[in-house]
Amino acid sequence: MIGGGQLARMMAPAATTLGCRLLVLAERVDTSAAGACELVVGDWRDPDTVVEFAAACDVVTFDHELVPPPALDALEACSTRISPSPAGMRRAADKQAQRTLASSVGLPVLDHRVVSEPADLERAVSELGLPVVAKRAGGGYDGRGLTWLRTRQDVTAFQAGGMTGEPVIIEPELDLTAELATTIARRANGEHVLYPVVRTHQVDGICHTVTAPAIVARPIADTLHDALVAIAEALDHVGVLTIEAFLVDDQVYLNELAPRPHNSAHYTIDACTTSQFENHLRAILGLPLGDPSMIVPAAAMANVLGVHDGPTDLPSVDLPARTSIHLYAKHSRPGRKLGHVTVTGRDPAALERTARSVAERLAHTSRTSLPASTERAPVIA
Amino acid sequence: MIGGGQLARMMAPAATTLGCRLLVLAERVDTSAAGACELVVGDWRDPDTVVEFAAACDVVTFDHELVPPPALDALEACSTRISPSPAGMRRAADKQAQRTLASSVGLPVLDHRVVSEPADLERAVSELGLPVVAKRAGGGYDGRGLTWLRTRQDVTAFQAGGMTGEPVIIEPELDLTAELATTIARRANGEHVLYPVVRTHQVDGICHTVTAPAIVARPIADTLHDALVAIAEALDHVGVLTIEAFLVDDQVYLNELAPRPHNSAHYTIDACTTSQFENHLRAILGLPLGDPSMIVPAAAMANVLGVHDGPTDLPSVDLPARTSIHLYAKHSRPGRKLGHVTVTGRDPAALERTARSVAERLAHTSRTSLPASTERAPVIA
Repeated sequence: MIGGGQLARMMAPAATTLGCRLLVLAERVDTSAAGACELVVGDWRDPDTVVEFAAACDVVTFDHELVPPPALDALEACSTRISPSPAGMRRAADKQAQRTLASSVGLPVLDHRVVSEPADLERAVSELGLPVVAKRAGGGYDGRGLTWLRTRQDVTAFQAGGMTGEPVIIEPELDLTAELATTIARRANGEHVLYPVVRTHQVDGICHTVTAPAIVARPIADTLHDALVAIAEALDHVGVLTIEAFLVDDQVYLNELAPRPHNSAHYTIDACTTSQFENHLRAILGLPLGDPSMIVPAAAMANVLGVHDGPTDLPSVDLPARTSIHLYAKHSRPGRKLGHVTVTGRDPAALERTARSVAERLAHTSRTSLPASTERAPVIA
Repeated sequence: MIGGGQLARMMAPAATTLGCRLLVLAERVDTSAAGACELVVGDWRDPDTVVEFAAACDVVTFDHELVPPPALDALEACSTRISPSPAGMRRAADKQAQRTLASSVGLPVLDHRVVSEPADLERAVSELGLPVVAKRAGGGYDGRGLTWLRTRQDVTAFQAGGMTGEPVIIEPELDLTAELATTIARRANGEHVLYPVVRTHQVDGICHTVTAPAIVARPIADTLHDALVAIAEALDHVGVLTIEAFLVDDQVYLNELAPRPHNSAHYTIDACTTSQFENHLRAILGLPLGDPSMIVPAAAMANVLGVHDGPTDLPSVDLPARTSIHLYAKHSRPGRKLGHVTVTGRDPAALERTARSVAERLAHTSRTSLPASTERAPVIA
């Protein structure tokens, strides 16, 4: 796996359960995935490094969609299987290409403009009206690359400082009924499984909580599932792929695609027979996919978002019934995702309150006592 | 953790979820736990090695109870916290001490004799009658150290070849109603949680399947739970501790204690909010314990027992609904535990059939395709 963040960390137990080895190419020894897998330290932006790494692997996959085009090109040319494919990664990581793809399978996208220059932005704003959201077309997640333009001052400031000549998507900021997401796992032979549609709760583009399943009418869930299957087929995607969508009244619009394990499906570790992580590995290894259905009536997930700046501690927090925590062994910074909490049961709203409350306690108690992961014991492997 | 078998391997995801580091002291680089944790290669029989290992840890625990007394003594003298304590490990690993302990808390033990010499065995057999089981008092699990003496020829053969002067426990082989087990996790402050009583199905002393919860009358479950709490208190045990028991009609007798994660509680990974592995870590790290209760009505676990002699492969077996597999990355040998399968649902008997069928298919398809774990990529950590 290229990239050593929390997705690589959470992939490790899935590799363990399948009896296979997970090598992770990460920039630093104190990355989130360290200790949970076999770490290879190197720069994943460097084509030679990624090719050398790939040569040690049977199949290569990604923790994030930030690998730059030259490194993706180099991977595409090497003999190791790369899943998802570099071509698909490029397309799925490009917000313009995502919109074209969604439209091509009949999933509505919001009326938007692609702008590069201040004058284009002016025209887009006059056509769409305020408020709008400006989204960098390439890269960016967890609210990075997003700017909310709600006033004339916001527009002027963005024109002055936010435009680098790179394409930016300008989309109306709507009054949303809900934000939804769902995840597919797909093998090269077309076999696929769909996870339930979930409701996500975002603040400033950062996921705070997820409730599963979403309480939405069946046709809405079917629309999203059908669109996701069609998009995965169009991309010939291998691995997991998440679609995030806006619900406005009873109409669904594309928000974003993520060609990798996704925060909105972390609940699957505790609430489904087979997690998104295991099914991602099964898909890229060409193994039969596992059952994605929930083994509990409902679940809620809350992210542990950093409050302090400092090292994190062991979780000395009392846990309510049916509550599981997952920590990412990361240095705490305000707003940073440090872990998540999953609560299973029956009433999504009550589960969400419990999950959020435990997550907040974990965020406030993060202080170190065990040795930091930079201070490592000798690994004589 | 001292020892790098499948218990260490399954401990790794629990360490990952708690955001802590798991160092494993194992004899070989191709041990089951390799790749899933930070491996330190060394001989856990050697006092200097275990003390050096302990110095790199905040707390030391065990994958098995085979660490010899000199190494346990050395650990006892070092400043690192050892959980469970070396004294408790010695007592819990000694089948005579187990029986004394059970009797002291009021749990019946089978009428037995401890013998070292052929003449003692003769007397024991004449007093107890055949059939009996001869159990080496120290060490031995998975049927190792057990000999069934059902005929006079068996007795003569055991007298001739099976007696080394070490104490052997001679116990009647009864017509069992069922074999039961349950697990406690206990912190140093006395806080503890109890897992459900489960039914285990053994063949020649090797666990084949487990169904949870056991369908037994409440007083039987209460007797076992109460005895286990009392035994854990008497040992001042820290970590998980499993009791295996014989049910004869409606009377429970001690079979064995295991002061570590146990095969009979592997189902807790998929069927309980907090697995035995996470609660073992929570207990030894002094963290609040997690909810041990089942999140599904019932579950069955079947061990994948080796059929071939050879390397194992990725699990290219179709999975029924609600089925999870856990492979141990071990070389296959006939009868060797290579992994396990858990199925969740409602009807224990049906779940057990499904689990057993998947386990048998996995056992028969074990062949290698990915690089063996001895052929390792450079770990530049």
